[in-house]
Amino acid sequence: MPFILGVDIGGTDIKLGIVDDSAAAAPFSREIVSGTIPTRAGEGPELAAARVRAWCEERDAAPAAAGIACAGLIDGARGILHVSPNLAGWIDVPLRALFERELGVPAAVENDANAAAYGEWRAGAGRGLRSFVCLTLGTGVGGGIVLDGSLYRGATGFAGEIGHTVILADGPPCACGSRGCLEALIGAPAITRRARELYGAREGTPAGSGSIGSVADLARAAAAGDEIASRVFEETGRFLGVALANVVHILAPEAIVVGGGVAGAGEILFGPARETLRRCVMDASMAEVRIVPAELGNRAAVLGSALLARAEAGGAR
Amino acid sequence: MPFILGVDIGGTDIKLGIVDDSAAAAPFSREIVSGTIPTRAGEGPELAAARVRAWCEERDAAPAAAGIACAGLIDGARGILHVSPNLAGWIDVPLRALFERELGVPAAVENDANAAAYGEWRAGAGRGLRSFVCLTLGTGVGGGIVLDGSLYRGATGFAGEIGHTVILADGPPCACGSRGCLEALIGAPAITRRARELYGAREGTPAGSGSIGSVADLARAAAAGDEIASRVFEETGRFLGVALANVVHILAPEAIVVGGGVAGAGEILFGPARETLRRCVMDASMAEVRIVPAELGNRAAVLGSALLARAEAGGAR
Repeated sequence: MPFILGVDIGGTDIKLGIVDDSAAAAPFSREIVSGTIPTRAGEGPELAAARVRAWCEERDAAPAAAGIACAGLIDGARGILHVSPNLAGWIDVPLRALFERELGVPAAVENDANAAAYGEWRAGAGRGLRSFVCLTLGTGVGGGIVLDGSLYRGATGFAGEIGHTVILADGPPCACGSRGCLEALIGAPAITRRARELYGAREGTPAGSGSIGSVADLARAAAAGDEIASRVFEETGRFLGVALANVVHILAPEAIVVGGGVAGAGEILFGPARETLRRCVMDASMAEVRIVPAELGNRAAVLGSALLARAEAGGAR
Repeated sequence: MPFILGVDIGGTDIKLGIVDDSAAAAPFSREIVSGTIPTRAGEGPELAAARVRAWCEERDAAPAAAGIACAGLIDGARGILHVSPNLAGWIDVPLRALFERELGVPAAVENDANAAAYGEWRAGAGRGLRSFVCLTLGTGVGGGIVLDGSLYRGATGFAGEIGHTVILADGPPCACGSRGCLEALIGAPAITRRARELYGAREGTPAGSGSIGSVADLARAAAAGDEIASRVFEETGRFLGVALANVVHILAPEAIVVGGGVAGAGEILFGPARETLRRCVMDASMAEVRIVPAELGNRAAVLGSALLARAEAGGAR
């Protein structure tokens, strides 16, 4: 099974990749063709699937299987997207049946954060590990869990939603409807909102930057010595550290792989996170868990979904 | 292997039981002799083990194996108690070697909350489940995890410490040194402390009770209509509900088994917990996880440790 399609459906874009899983790609599978098309969620999943097919046809790509990663609660066994906060109106969508009909090949469906964890496990920062947790820090905060050498989905298929664990009871509201979730505290919108509040109170703008439109802007301001930007990353890092300690206390994984755009902020975020991890764990030995940067960037779910499709189809490399 | 010794070492008492694992006890193993002796932690683990041997000798009990459950961080593979907040001075104690020498039989060593989870799984409320989390609510808040049909210990052996996950960042201090842990919010001392604060502010005493010395006193006061006692259980239940939701979001187990003395408060605690669980989960379906009362009371770890010892010795019933 040499060529597999990986698809990562997000609220704004669909990322696509043709993954070379042949011997030529050894030791690690890789994308040989990559692309991005708009999701246009409002037009519905059928038209999105048709655009994915068109993208393949334009490239003369005839994959042997397709992996579909999607933000939201996924019943992978039945191939159904139950509901997604980022895809309004996509309720109980039979994604597997839809893509199998469009593409004419077997399809596997998985939550995007789980697919990213699987990608990092097979071809990224999680290679060779038996158990690790993968956190993806972006607009949302995604989690995926690999335990004892397989992707852990739980009894319902909805396991790994670490972004929606509450670490500050009665804290700020979250897009999911709850309060004080990790995502409500360290998701990109929470970070930029906090920065705007602080700059607003000071009636100034960040040093070295005319705008605080994005977390990357803020990271540049912090690197240029801006005090408020530094403080925002320190607060964010402390919440991240609490979440890392919670993961260690519950799962005691070999490692925690951290990726996503927000993780790009680097040590201004991870320094306070590690310090808080050390302060929150019951025993110093627990802080020795390896905190590892993700390797696959924002293509982890594309690659992971393709490799999951191969595993489900039972095809050997 | 018909008779096995189960030992549960806590900060105050050591609970002991001879477990009948013969065909006569089918379908479920049970304790046929039960006892409790003081721990006297200050005298050290050697004397404690000697008292356990004396207890067996006085009863002419010659078990074929022994299971040792102990509060604290346990390296079960090496049979070592690393450290325990409730057993001052018991640092890096080779419990397995110690008890094997005293008793002359193979011994298995496990964290007490893990042993309780194992007991509930093999002979209590977790029978027949493939995956569940067991929470024990007492002075401490213990957690044990059964996944895919086996006790989950994680890479370090220290998994399942749900009582020390932070659900209120920068909240009240915990005995473990961190802040805002579940245990610091809903452990028995936190409950009675909160009650004393509220009664103190009102300068009164609970209705139907002259004292608030224990959670049971407080439960009686709440049952008798005392407003402050009811409010304390409602607050406690809300924190418990947040923890239940966090467990569902991370592990998506089939069920959560809840035991321990504090759980004896019943609906005044579980009503608000279920309501909060529903409010905190991303999707209504996630609140349908079964919340099940533990069945083995405070003997779960005695029975569980004995059954673990049998499993490690590879003996069939």
